Amino acid sequence: MIQTPSYKTDYEAYRERMRRLADVKAALALMQWDQETYLPAKGAGFRAQQIATLAEMAHKMATSDKLGAMLDSLEESSIPDETERKNISLNRLDFEKQKKYPASFVRKMSEAVSRSFNSWNQAKKENRFSLFEKDLAQLVELKKEETQLLGYSGHPYDSLMDEFEKGSTVKLVDRIFSNMRPKLQELLEKILGKKTPEDAFLYKSFDKKKQWDYGIQVIGSLGFDFEAGRQDLSSHPFSTSFNKYDVRITTRIDESDFTSMLFSCIHETGHALYEQGLPESEYGLPSGEYASLGIHESQSRLWENHVGRSRAFWKFQYPLAQEKFPDAFKNVREEDFYKAVNKIKPSFIRTESDELTYHFHVMIRYEIEKMLISGELKTQDIPECWNEQYRKYLGVEVPSDKMGCLQDVHWSHGSFGYFPTYSLGSFYAAQFFASASKADPFLAEKMETGNTEELLQWLRQRIHASGRLFTSEDICERATGETLNVQYFLDYMLDKYQKIYEF
Amino acid sequence: MIQTPSYKTDYEAYRERMRRLADVKAALALMQWDQETYLPAKGAGFRAQQIATLAEMAHKMATSDKLGAMLDSLEESSIPDETERKNISLNRLDFEKQKKYPASFVRKMSEAVSRSFNSWNQAKKENRFSLFEKDLAQLVELKKEETQLLGYSGHPYDSLMDEFEKGSTVKLVDRIFSNMRPKLQELLEKILGKKTPEDAFLYKSFDKKKQWDYGIQVIGSLGFDFEAGRQDLSSHPFSTSFNKYDVRITTRIDESDFTSMLFSCIHETGHALYEQGLPESEYGLPSGEYASLGIHESQSRLWENHVGRSRAFWKFQYPLAQEKFPDAFKNVREEDFYKAVNKIKPSFIRTESDELTYHFHVMIRYEIEKMLISGELKTQDIPECWNEQYRKYLGVEVPSDKMGCLQDVHWSHGSFGYFPTYSLGSFYAAQFFASASKADPFLAEKMETGNTEELLQWLRQRIHASGRLFTSEDICERATGETLNVQYFLDYMLDKYQKIYEF
Repeated sequence: MIQTPSYKTDYEAYRERMRRLADVKAALALMQWDQETYLPAKGAGFRAQQIATLAEMAHKMATSDKLGAMLDSLEESSIPDETERKNISLNRLDFEKQKKYPASFVRKMSEAVSRSFNSWNQAKKENRFSLFEKDLAQLVELKKEETQLLGYSGHPYDSLMDEFEKGSTVKLVDRIFSNMRPKLQELLEKILGKKTPEDAFLYKSFDKKKQWDYGIQVIGSLGFDFEAGRQDLSSHPFSTSFNKYDVRITTRIDESDFTSMLFSCIHETGHALYEQGLPESEYGLPSGEYASLGIHESQSRLWENHVGRSRAFWKFQYPLAQEKFPDAFKNVREEDFYKAVNKIKPSFIRTESDELTYHFHVMIRYEIEKMLISGELKTQDIPECWNEQYRKYLGVEVPSDKMGCLQDVHWSHGSFGYFPTYSLGSFYAAQFFASASKADPFLAEKMETGNTEELLQWLRQRIHASGRLFTSEDICERATGETLNVQYFLDYMLDKYQKIYEF
Repeated sequence: MIQTPSYKTDYEAYRERMRRLADVKAALALMQWDQETYLPAKGAGFRAQQIATLAEMAHKMATSDKLGAMLDSLEESSIPDETERKNISLNRLDFEKQKKYPASFVRKMSEAVSRSFNSWNQAKKENRFSLFEKDLAQLVELKKEETQLLGYSGHPYDSLMDEFEKGSTVKLVDRIFSNMRPKLQELLEKILGKKTPEDAFLYKSFDKKKQWDYGIQVIGSLGFDFEAGRQDLSSHPFSTSFNKYDVRITTRIDESDFTSMLFSCIHETGHALYEQGLPESEYGLPSGEYASLGIHESQSRLWENHVGRSRAFWKFQYPLAQEKFPDAFKNVREEDFYKAVNKIKPSFIRTESDELTYHFHVMIRYEIEKMLISGELKTQDIPECWNEQYRKYLGVEVPSDKMGCLQDVHWSHGSFGYFPTYSLGSFYAAQFFASASKADPFLAEKMETGNTEELLQWLRQRIHASGRLFTSEDICERATGETLNVQYFLDYMLDKYQKIYEF
């Protein structure tokens, strides 16, 4: 009689437990998705309470003594399978980290976030920072408390960044940003000395329904599986996933701006393609989860910029856009359209900024967050500090808090330490795209015919398939042969903008 | 120093516990709503698993020893408030009942239901009962197991009906149905001997978007609060509620049938008005829940038939319908329209049947369910039995299983014992409406001007406000001065159809 080794039964039981935790997290994510898409206005109060309850339950499951004992026992078994061993050790880290949060803190944070989200919405609508300031101050205090709960050896902000990008520290990010800042400034100055491309045709009138249909076509053409996901409207575009067969993205439509919806669609599609590419059998386990926010953003930024703002992509897509919107585009050449969607223009809105100035937006937020968490900056002084930095780095006057420090949803969600991953993601994206292009010299040619299938397969194999089994740095090295090297991003920018701006 | 009595602290703790259970049930209901409205096709498998997990968790919470101990202690305190006392004693009954279900049974049932729902959908699509039969047989076995778990003194089916309509028994329902059957048959024969109203204009072409807009207008005019609810599309209309500020209904649109969407909208609005009228402060407690399925159906049937198929209602609404659909209605008189939407015509589809033959549809299902549960009928013999009964009671030949025994979703949901509440609800509705009309002699006149506000207020005060604190019979007696008396329904039918069919 052949007996099943006991670790197998144990591992199966552990796996079943993690599946159930994933089920609860999926319910939580659905409630949040619904909150941003279809929830009736008066339902907000009860929904906040429902979310807090589920968040607390998920936390209890993730830190239960039973799970702890399971991990103990599995750690003592000699499991031959490497993926299984890695899942156990990654789960141990999660477990120990989650244990640092008392259940009461989880509920308090969840409630504070719901409150802040509402007051931020109101403050933004009325352009009155003061309506948000008190809740934000409370949230910052909670985040400071969190840094104490989590512990840190360098800057307290390290512990918050670690949540989104494991191993990320102020020391590391400061080094990258201080290296990039002067180079990007130099490039920006060169560009601003040149003639700017004409782009008025992008801001004519674009019918909402037609934009939506065009967006759906683009999303589908990039490989998004509409049988395993959907797109809806929300005021702030986002992506969420309940499992690889149910990945949802959202967008918003501006009738007087062709780029606003379109690039958000492509960006969120990048996120979604990653989630749709995670291994089904690993549902609920580290091996079935995304690696980090930095890697997640590398996928969205890769599709948004290296594909969506490329000459090759528009060679195929532009005739379709012209057909859909003849009034705006019939007399515009493809080359001029390409230059227009790549125009560099310092402005005060991050999500609508170009590939170059984008990183100044990120760096400004990063500096402010560091100061808030260290206590060097008080919440009431944010607007002044914000506007000052925009003057300094981008030479623009922020017209209002609504278009200034109230523009992003992140702080109201309690997400501090998230912004740097946008830049890191962009730098990874450039490196990944360079590697994929090297591996397949016909990548651009294929894109010209609307074919991005091989690119997607390259990403699936090199990045998506391994879930969270490797760190960002390891993923990068395995995919490209070296750890993060920002030179790829700088080379890409220089090459692209030299051609567009002719310098 | 004034001390808070200890029962107050205990009651507050109990209440908090019930609120959290309600939060989990709301998450569950949202996942089910999403399953029927927006879930991508490939997401069905994981969703079934997620629903099973949450169902199991809700069951554990509802039967936890801690809750049991709380109820023990509260039962021993002398609580002065009657509502609080009633909540405790109703919760005790729920607790004891839920305790009868092992957690493994709850999960098994939830998984069986998901499987059945999928195979029923497939079977209906392909018109092949055999695709559903095996899962249905398994479900019937589980339901039989459930009758054993729950226990019963009369017929095993009693324990299943009790879930939807407390106190309902085969003895009671047999008595009501055998009293009604000959009277309804007599009325039907009289009507079939008369000239049938012309109704071809109801089956012309009605633009989907226009129907949707017209439906939204009607729903709003009846008092549905769109800030506390919404309507979406689904293949089977239903209503669901996550709390009184988030009540959702669904409908479907048939371009060649004006009545299909419209009366489903009004029916579901009736359900929704009940949920939107429950007391907010009692969220999660019996005092904040609907009384029974029979009372729920009394609300939907009252609005659908006594309002939506009344002459007074169409006096106001018909000109609006004419304006929206001039091609179909411009040459149709209001009186003829009224007669058409009240045409009596034996058919094989329950949801599209008239107010009279509707009850034969219910009775047929009731008889079949009783026989399935008692073991007198095997699932494979359902189609033959079904068709035979349709021949016998309605004189119609069922053309296919798709339009026969596969037409309703209920069995695939594991809902056995639900159907009789449709008829009971209709009978209650007639009695409620008669009482409300007696209380306000100008009710019909107000309806003629599109005003149903006072009717809604009457229902809110007499029926909605007390949640589940009273039994259906008590509610009926408190609202109308007597317990259920089917004579109101018979009188209403006779009066209405005598005028329409002139006999």
